[in-house]
Formats: sequence, structure tokens, C-alpha cells
Amino acid sequence: MSKKVIGIVGGMGPLATADLFKKIVINTKAEKDQDHIRVLVDNNTNIPDRTGAILHGGMDPVPELTKSAKALENMGADLLIMPCNTAHYFHKSVAEAVNIPVLHMIEITCKALKLQGIKKAGLLATDGTIQSGIYQKVFNDSGIELIKPDEKGQEAVMDMIYGGVKASRWDFDTTAVKETMESLLFAGAQTLILGCTELPLAKEMYSLDYPSVDPTLELAREAIRQAGKEIV
Amino acid sequence: MSKKVIGIVGGMGPLATADLFKKIVINTKAEKDQDHIRVLVDNNTNIPDRTGAILHGGMDPVPELTKSAKALENMGADLLIMPCNTAHYFHKSVAEAVNIPVLHMIEITCKALKLQGIKKAGLLATDGTIQSGIYQKVFNDSGIELIKPDEKGQEAVMDMIYGGVKASRWDFDTTAVKETMESLLFAGAQTLILGCTELPLAKEMYSLDYPSVDPTLELAREAIRQAGKEIV
Repeated sequence: MSKKVIGIVGGMGPLATADLFKKIVINTKAEKDQDHIRVLVDNNTNIPDRTGAILHGGMDPVPELTKSAKALENMGADLLIMPCNTAHYFHKSVAEAVNIPVLHMIEITCKALKLQGIKKAGLLATDGTIQSGIYQKVFNDSGIELIKPDEKGQEAVMDMIYGGVKASRWDFDTTAVKETMESLLFAGAQTLILGCTELPLAKEMYSLDYPSVDPTLELAREAIRQAGKEIV
Repeated sequence: MSKKVIGIVGGMGPLATADLFKKIVINTKAEKDQDHIRVLVDNNTNIPDRTGAILHGGMDPVPELTKSAKALENMGADLLIMPCNTAHYFHKSVAEAVNIPVLHMIEITCKALKLQGIKKAGLLATDGTIQSGIYQKVFNDSGIELIKPDEKGQEAVMDMIYGGVKASRWDFDTTAVKETMESLLFAGAQTLILGCTELPLAKEMYSLDYPSVDPTLELAREAIRQAGKEIV
């Protein structure tokens, strides 16, 4: 099987895009540069905020999303991935705009949790992801129960994503987020879904050491497989 | 000044490409996704080994380098950067193939060292970079003396680049490299130029804590400035 070219519809956010790219590189079995997968990235910072569009009448991200998807296809991408959970609300529009597959991070995450035998998981994500129900829709028939933070906890998660990671504040106070994570685990969640691509970064930046699953990593692994390479 | 689009002619190597991209993101002054710079990346793993081409009659990397450069220009890049010191041996060919500027990592590094008042620096790099004299050419009239490892030390550096970083071996034995770095400092080098984009990665992977300058970081900073954004 010859190697396929991966295209990353990125910029959502930029650090999450770099994180996904790096996770592809370090998880690909390779001995030298030429063994690696060709990856094309459009870190398209013109894509409007996804939660803003879904919940607050903000600008529609679809035109910029499809523009990047088409440009990457034209440049030679054989499959596309998007390092933004909330952007998967628009997955169908992006997939319809191109003639190559667009992997679905949330479906991939659901499969990974099933394989781990998880029955109950806590969902940490943006307001846009939570309120649009995109995780719920995918998980409905999976046999995995999703539980969410309460209103105050959800505010704390949003604050860390926007006021912490996206603003590059390494000294962000995570007390409220830690309480939220602990309360989900106390309520029976066997693991926490880091359902916003800023959250695996937050986990590292702020040492949030709780049992969790990283959808960015699951997406990277599946993209490597579909590109025809082995995982480390 | 409106933001410019940065194109990365990448894949040399893939982890160094991810490193350069991340250094652009974390060094850009930004409060939200949309404040960041649009970056296009071609992690082109079809580019043949540069040292192999310069010294051992290996395949010429220029056709793939220029193919990526042109594709990035077509996709909208306003300026190009290459995360590979050795590839700068072919800088002129790449620059002539496109109508946008191709920044020169080695010239940028030379300017940065001048600003720091360095008079004598140790050069750690691939055989291709060392033997082609590309650093020497740039540094000739700079007033900065470059010193190099002896033959055994140079072998140790090459071994760490190819057998350690490019092969993702986190347990690589760096004893010989550390002796080489120490001997350059003992010979009067005020700093060590990590003159291969795998070396800043090696510094982190293997905790090589010696005074050093990181050309990838200098290139990232200059690209941010030229793209019209402020440095953090």
C-alpha cells in the first residue's frame, strides 16, 4: 500500500493544529525523514470562532472551512482531518465540498472508548460542542453514557480554553476546572473526554493529571493508519 | 500592516517542521485564534536527504524543494521558510523558483549572534552543512569565528541526528555528543549553534543543557516579524 497524503484543516486553534501535526509525526513508525507521511497543513486563522457561530449568531465558519479543505485537496491531500471538536458540527458541509474522505474525530473517539470498555465518560468541551449535542448524537447508540459538568463547571472549562490556552496564559488558575473534573469522576465517569483540542494542551500546560482520553491523539492514530503507515 | 501568510517547505525532518510551526504559534502575540498568523505547511517527505546529495552523490533535492515552494506560493504564501540548515545549500535554487521571499535561516542566525555580541561560536551540524561551508560563507565577514568538532565529535553529532532524533530513539546514548559540546566550549566557544533543526529537538529530548543558539527559533521570530505580527 502506498502512503497517502494527510491534509489538516487547521487554525482551530493554531496550537492544537501544531499538536495534531506533532502527534502524527511522533506516532508514525519511521527510521528516517522519507519514511514519514506527507502532511499538508492550512493553519487558517481566518476561520471564525465555531462556538460563536453555533450559539451566538457569529460568522459562519463553513466558507473558510471548505476553502481550506478544497485547497488541501487541490494540493494533493488524500484524506482530511480537522483539529477542532466543535468544527465537527459542520463536518457534513466540509465533507460534501471535497471528493476525499474527511475523518470524524468524534466517531473515532467513540470507537476508542468502546474498545477500552468504557461505560460512562465525562465530557469536557466548549459550549458549542456541548449545546449542539454533536458528541451526544455520535454516542447515542454506543452504550456509553456521557455526563457533563454543571453550569458553573462548564463556565470554568470555557474560561480555561479561551482565557488560558488560546490566550497562551501559562499562569491560568485551574482550581475551578480541577473541581469540575473531580466531580465528574466522583459521579462515576471512568474517564474524561478532552473534547476540545485545547484540552490536551491544557492537561500538559496545567498538569491536569486525571484519567482521560485525548481525541486529538485518537484522530492522529487513525489518520496514520488510513495513510497506510504503522503506529509506533 | 496586514498579516502575511507564512509557507513552510517542510519534511526536513518532520519533527523539526512541527517544531518550527509550534515556535511560530507560541511566539506570536495573540489573544485568540484569529490573531494568529496563517501558516501553510508542506511536510514533504519525498525530499531526498540533503547531506546525501551534497556529499555522497544522492538524489538531488531541488526538484521536490521547488515543487513544494511553488505549491505553497500557489496556495497563498507570501514568504517561505525551510526548517533545515543543510537545505540552505540549495537556497538560491528555491528562491529563484518562486516570486516570494525565501528567508535565510543561517543569515538570520548570524545576525542574532552579532546582536548578542558573540565573537566565537561552536558549530554543530550535519556533515553536509559542515563540509559544504554554508555557515562559513555567511559568517565570513561577521567578525564571529566558527569552530567545529573534531572528526570523532562530528561522527557523534551525525549519529545523534540520524540514529537518535530522526529515528525517534529517546534512549540514545549522548555521552560522546556531550564530550564534543564540552570540548568546543573549553576551546573558547561562547555559545553552540544548534545548526541542524534536529539539534534543538535533541537538546530537549536528551537534556543537553549547554549555552546555545537555536536557529529554528530565530527563524520563527523573524518570520513572525516579517508576517506583520509582534513577538511575545
